[in-house]
Amino acid sequence: MSKPIDFYFDFSSPYGYLASTRIEAIAAKHNRIVEWHPILLGAIFKVSGQAPLTTYPLKGDYALMDFGRAAREHNTPYSQPAVFPVGAVAASRACCWIKAATDKKIQDTLTPFVHGIFKAYYVDGRNISEVDEVLAVASSVGINKEALAAGVAEQPIKDALRIAIEGAIELGIFGSPTTVIDGEKFWGSDRLEQVDRWLERGGW
Amino acid sequence: MSKPIDFYFDFSSPYGYLASTRIEAIAAKHNRIVEWHPILLGAIFKVSGQAPLTTYPLKGDYALMDFGRAAREHNTPYSQPAVFPVGAVAASRACCWIKAATDKKIQDTLTPFVHGIFKAYYVDGRNISEVDEVLAVASSVGINKEALAAGVAEQPIKDALRIAIEGAIELGIFGSPTTVIDGEKFWGSDRLEQVDRWLERGGW
Repeated sequence: MSKPIDFYFDFSSPYGYLASTRIEAIAAKHNRIVEWHPILLGAIFKVSGQAPLTTYPLKGDYALMDFGRAAREHNTPYSQPAVFPVGAVAASRACCWIKAATDKKIQDTLTPFVHGIFKAYYVDGRNISEVDEVLAVASSVGINKEALAAGVAEQPIKDALRIAIEGAIELGIFGSPTTVIDGEKFWGSDRLEQVDRWLERGGW
Repeated sequence: MSKPIDFYFDFSSPYGYLASTRIEAIAAKHNRIVEWHPILLGAIFKVSGQAPLTTYPLKGDYALMDFGRAAREHNTPYSQPAVFPVGAVAASRACCWIKAATDKKIQDTLTPFVHGIFKAYYVDGRNISEVDEVLAVASSVGINKEALAAGVAEQPIKDALRIAIEGAIELGIFGSPTTVIDGEKFWGSDRLEQVDRWLERGGW
């Protein structure tokens, strides 16, 4: 198996969600697996000088239209959440806790947990900034709620997320999703076809 | 012949250039022609609250890398201009003058002129903010330099560009390139494949 494809995303990002539903199939086609890297754009925007997409005049209206249109093209269920953007700290820390688990069975819940959080937010309209909603998703993929609740409150897990975000910034990541293939960054869900061609051709 | 595809671009925009080399083939495939709409992002950014792409930390570095990579994928000649971004007022007003011409032969120079300006800037490294460079391109596609020089200094031509940009803002256009198909906007050169699929499927 070759090196994994690194997929950086904010759970609050519609394009992150849309790409999350397609990246594994693209990776598998090229004998790769996906490594999930939740990040928080709020922290990154402080460095990059950007603001949440939908807050920009003109561009924001286009984005709100495009989220749904991009979803429809691939028959991906999508419902614009009432609370948007949303704080994804709890869900992202939960990913860090899952990744840090020594129990392989817990580690294996990461992928269904990521999809579960995205679905809770973008399909079921749940407010994933609330810890209870995060725990409900965790429970649905077989994670012990109490263990997770205790875990995400621990300093090493909080630190793990902060360090991961700092590492993403060091890599030059500024947006969600960003797919990194052997050090090569591709920003945007609209770059997945290019990602596919890059893997096919081995770069250009 | 169906309605034309409206292609909005800033001559200073690398993604506008890259898309300009491919949009006609996509349009022709679907029995459409391209209508060129030069705009000035500087004026639009005042409304949308954006800044030139390469001025953003992190995002700017990615963009500078991506311009060349996106060009290489399609074997499009591309050389990052020394003066960047560049003021495209003169070149854009020249387009307005060409469009306003009563002589069909002059009107027909619009497409080669657009490609000529892009090539002068992104391939030959000419500073297209200078009127002389614009006139040289015009001359190379068969336009009378003196007539154009006099034309672009006239108030109705200046007004035509201003009105065109105001109209683009009213349509919600905030970036370059933006391809508009029967009222449906697609922002970005990385959306050309989606534009192709939209035309193929007649929307979704």
